[in-house]
Amino acid sequence: MDERGLIRSLVPLLGSAATADDCAAVRHGGEWLLLSTDMLHETTDFPIGMTDVEIGWMAAAVTLSDIAAMGARPLTLLLATGLDRPERLAGITEGALACCRAHGADLAGGDTDAHTELTIVSTGLGTAASPVRRSGARPGDLICVTGYLGGAQAALSGHDQYWRRLIEPVPRVAEGLALNAAGVTAMMDISDGLALSLHDMLAVNECGFAVDSARLPRPGGVPEDEGREFALYGGGDFELLFTIPAEHFPVVGVDATVIGAVVAERSVTVDGAPLPGRGYMHCWGSSPDQNPDFR
Amino acid sequence: MDERGLIRSLVPLLGSAATADDCAAVRHGGEWLLLSTDMLHETTDFPIGMTDVEIGWMAAAVTLSDIAAMGARPLTLLLATGLDRPERLAGITEGALACCRAHGADLAGGDTDAHTELTIVSTGLGTAASPVRRSGARPGDLICVTGYLGGAQAALSGHDQYWRRLIEPVPRVAEGLALNAAGVTAMMDISDGLALSLHDMLAVNECGFAVDSARLPRPGGVPEDEGREFALYGGGDFELLFTIPAEHFPVVGVDATVIGAVVAERSVTVDGAPLPGRGYMHCWGSSPDQNPDFR
Repeated sequence: MDERGLIRSLVPLLGSAATADDCAAVRHGGEWLLLSTDMLHETTDFPIGMTDVEIGWMAAAVTLSDIAAMGARPLTLLLATGLDRPERLAGITEGALACCRAHGADLAGGDTDAHTELTIVSTGLGTAASPVRRSGARPGDLICVTGYLGGAQAALSGHDQYWRRLIEPVPRVAEGLALNAAGVTAMMDISDGLALSLHDMLAVNECGFAVDSARLPRPGGVPEDEGREFALYGGGDFELLFTIPAEHFPVVGVDATVIGAVVAERSVTVDGAPLPGRGYMHCWGSSPDQNPDFR
Repeated sequence: MDERGLIRSLVPLLGSAATADDCAAVRHGGEWLLLSTDMLHETTDFPIGMTDVEIGWMAAAVTLSDIAAMGARPLTLLLATGLDRPERLAGITEGALACCRAHGADLAGGDTDAHTELTIVSTGLGTAASPVRRSGARPGDLICVTGYLGGAQAALSGHDQYWRRLIEPVPRVAEGLALNAAGVTAMMDISDGLALSLHDMLAVNECGFAVDSARLPRPGGVPEDEGREFALYGGGDFELLFTIPAEHFPVVGVDATVIGAVVAERSVTVDGAPLPGRGYMHCWGSSPDQNPDFR
């Protein structure tokens, strides 16, 4: 069973609301509180060669990206860190703090523990008057992405000019807020690649998604076929995927590209052919930790 | 360096507010949001013989206890779980959900991952108009604890009648709310034993703490000397330690015992002698994971 299957198995216990979006959403005092938690392990989630500061930045970024994906304003972040060596905590905290401050959030505290493998769980809290969900797409809406796709995967495949893109992902916080205000109908972040994300959207919408591969914003300097593959299936980009009525696009201040259209038929296609729901799902290093039957 | 030393080393980066209390406290919209995150590993934090449901309950309880310790109302909890076997998630979630529901909180979601050793990070969010801090104690205040102390340690030392006390800790949520309303001056939970907790209080107060060992509520059926040792140094009880002006004690609906008095001199004493700041600090199993230089 993969992670998505496992999370689906919890629906009878927790209800679908607890498993359908990038964040848990709690109605409180006239607004919504958005909460997200992400567990990262050194061997599976952090590419070899990263510094502790970069690891801290990435741990914060993935969680802030989940908050951005709901069109919410991040308020604060907590870091629980299982350390193989205690002296790593300072660098990790420094990196997480820098990422938080760059996106208007505090790093409010956390927990530490000794562990054989470095393990970081970052948990973020954000607020929104009206968060954007993964559901809500309507036939006729444009499908768009911020920035470009496939850069992180390009770095993993030897295109060294994309190394910083891989290790220092930028959560699209300002973009998420602007897109929420502009009236997007559905949104999520693309942490595990576009194809998997579109299938996640399919699972919670009553419509389908038709992508035109020629319109995909690919990493420059990478051969076209390879770049297309990276853009469709590569993880680690943390751009936003959203749907929006055509009359509301483009959105001022948001660098985004139209890559297709929401359609009535419930399927995900690229250039008219079914797009398989596959991706790289965090498998970023050779790991003794990894259980192929589970991941 | 132990965990407390490591956390103190972050003060220059995060400020003392981020490291001084059971929860991080964020002022928002006319109230306070309280956040706590706890990382638990199977070999160091869960006594051998616990079921997955019990493990889930305990993971939720330790975090709800931190929220209770601030006199706050728990709102919701997230669980990030690194699983050695995916089939364990259902039981863990069931236990956490039961603990949340028993204390008025939701289990809103989480994250899952494969990991060699079961690792759970529970993060909770609570709210309070005015949270209670660890600081705020004043000379002349009573020192009190809820319930009794040393039961969890008694179970670990072979007193099997305390097994449930050890594996199913009850967060003192209702008590924390009542104590906050009654005007306690300082509060924390006693997760690592009374002695360490009193030293944690000492570190953030301008006064001292004088305990009378004869007044300690000890586990019944345990020899007196042993029970006194467990009550002073045993971890895992999750009762509340608080200070309160004498005129506000007792508090209706809260089972609590006076164990001493806040004094002007900045020291922790028991029966007039210095009380060492030692405890068991989670070392609840033989663990290949454990690094004695760090814990």
